[in-house]
Amino acid sequence: MPVGTQGSVKAMSPEELKNVDAQIILGNTYHLFLRPGLDVIKHFGGLHRFMSWDYPILTDSGGFQVFSLSKLRKISEEGVHFSSHIDGSPCFLNPEIAMEIQATLGSDIAMAFDECTPYPCEWGDAAASLERTMRWAKRCRDWIVDQPPERRSLLFGIIQGATYSDLRERSAQALVAMDFDGYAVGGVSVGEPEPEMMLAIESSEGFLPANKPRYAMGLGTPSQIVEMIARGMDMFDCVLPTRLARNGTAFTEFGTINLKNNPYRLDERPIEETCNCSTCRTFTRGYIRHLIKAEEILGLRLITIHNLHFYLNLTRRIRTALENERFAEFRQQFIANYVKYEPSEI
Amino acid sequence: MPVGTQGSVKAMSPEELKNVDAQIILGNTYHLFLRPGLDVIKHFGGLHRFMSWDYPILTDSGGFQVFSLSKLRKISEEGVHFSSHIDGSPCFLNPEIAMEIQATLGSDIAMAFDECTPYPCEWGDAAASLERTMRWAKRCRDWIVDQPPERRSLLFGIIQGATYSDLRERSAQALVAMDFDGYAVGGVSVGEPEPEMMLAIESSEGFLPANKPRYAMGLGTPSQIVEMIARGMDMFDCVLPTRLARNGTAFTEFGTINLKNNPYRLDERPIEETCNCSTCRTFTRGYIRHLIKAEEILGLRLITIHNLHFYLNLTRRIRTALENERFAEFRQQFIANYVKYEPSEI
Repeated sequence: MPVGTQGSVKAMSPEELKNVDAQIILGNTYHLFLRPGLDVIKHFGGLHRFMSWDYPILTDSGGFQVFSLSKLRKISEEGVHFSSHIDGSPCFLNPEIAMEIQATLGSDIAMAFDECTPYPCEWGDAAASLERTMRWAKRCRDWIVDQPPERRSLLFGIIQGATYSDLRERSAQALVAMDFDGYAVGGVSVGEPEPEMMLAIESSEGFLPANKPRYAMGLGTPSQIVEMIARGMDMFDCVLPTRLARNGTAFTEFGTINLKNNPYRLDERPIEETCNCSTCRTFTRGYIRHLIKAEEILGLRLITIHNLHFYLNLTRRIRTALENERFAEFRQQFIANYVKYEPSEI
Repeated sequence: MPVGTQGSVKAMSPEELKNVDAQIILGNTYHLFLRPGLDVIKHFGGLHRFMSWDYPILTDSGGFQVFSLSKLRKISEEGVHFSSHIDGSPCFLNPEIAMEIQATLGSDIAMAFDECTPYPCEWGDAAASLERTMRWAKRCRDWIVDQPPERRSLLFGIIQGATYSDLRERSAQALVAMDFDGYAVGGVSVGEPEPEMMLAIESSEGFLPANKPRYAMGLGTPSQIVEMIARGMDMFDCVLPTRLARNGTAFTEFGTINLKNNPYRLDERPIEETCNCSTCRTFTRGYIRHLIKAEEILGLRLITIHNLHFYLNLTRRIRTALENERFAEFRQQFIANYVKYEPSEI
């Protein structure tokens, strides 16, 4: 899922999203709640109509952003008091309000309101937080079953438990007992080493029903996505393809390249010779490099198109490989080719 | 002509330019000479191929930018020494080099290399500068007739003479005697009051042949364009539609509106209800306002599309009015409706 934090997948038009075959995007409850505000979204008949996107939208619950972006948080059983990262004004979110907001946004898939623990986190703190998150999940579940059908979206529960397998197991089992439409693994990609991330997925996944979608939140690099799918995950959202594009970084089958670099100055090839996105069909690395160096908006637009196409095409290729029972081979070959994205390069 | 300073009309793709019916764009010799540099443009086979634009390109000569952007200028009969506005490195331009660069860019219409006088400017300084600019124009003319046909673009001369009618007349007559493919009025829109701008046009225009295009450089607001056409001008280039878009300002039949303003918050109308550009067919003022407030790139993209469509549609409507001999009526009505763009609003 491309990430449309503020009612727009950064630099992209809805038409361009369709051209890269995006089938669903993510919208951020926290951001849209603060700006433009719910009265605006409601006035325009929901987020789909507001942003002219007629395909599905998954909305997060705001939990992650409250803990990662806002300041002066005060958590109680009831919910979270925090200050807006835009103007510092006092705000309050709790399970019922998060659900209400997501219903007003017109979400197709809503997420339960959760507390996202930081990395590292002591077992005791993670356990206490997890128990509250599970009570909050129940309140979200209770809220949605009371709604009239036209306001009732799908609802996913979020597994927490930091890096502790026993807590992940407890969380997964508690959520499955509440019977959600899908299950997400949250609290990953918060700074933990990759082996701990994989372990958090592995210790959750075994307890989830096979017939419900599994969503690894906020992930990841292309190789992480391949490895997550190998571990039974189905859905992903990630800002990397759009965020790195704005810095001149493009994804290819053989790792990332930064188009700002000098070797691309006279490079007449497209970003990726085997790619059939609109950027690669028309523009050279040399031209895109010039645009990025000259800080022209078209440069980051062209890379964003390519990067989203790369990600969406990756999951499409994996689906085909799975259908043809060639995924193990695909995984091995992809990981062997792919030089993992290194933050230090960027 | 939309302005593509650095090999890109800001925020627009070539396809979007075609969708707003742009038939020709302007490229900047000075900027492209400094970045990416001529070796890059040459390697890619010229500016058209570099930026994937297969319609005509007019290039300015670099004269205006040398005088408005660069520092440490030293002017002699031979040419101008200056330092790059990017890294301060020493550069040199003269008529022959400016022509050589434009030929390498693959310009369809090249401009003669000129000195652009500031406002205000003493008569004596303007006269001396003008004489040199006329000698430089002759050198450009001589250069181009020596070229093989495949390197020979059209070449326009540039009328200078600051705000002095006698100098404008002398300049126009000297250029016409050299027989250029078209004639531009330069040294306007450099800070002078609008009546002086109109006078500069009026005192040049009467001496130009009826069968050659006349180009008013760097102009203007919609009402200025209408008034310039009333004074016999045919061609324009202007950064206003793209530059103001980036600040949230949209052009309409009834003047400019700044979409950042609060009244547009819940406004479900398109920027202009009678407009059929892709922005107005799909998006509301309220959504675009949100995008601009949230600093989303899509916001300035959508306004840029509308603004360029507005300008190009304005000249299209004027052509139709001229063909139907209704221009006087069109002019009167347009000016009456149009609340002139006021810099203080922006």
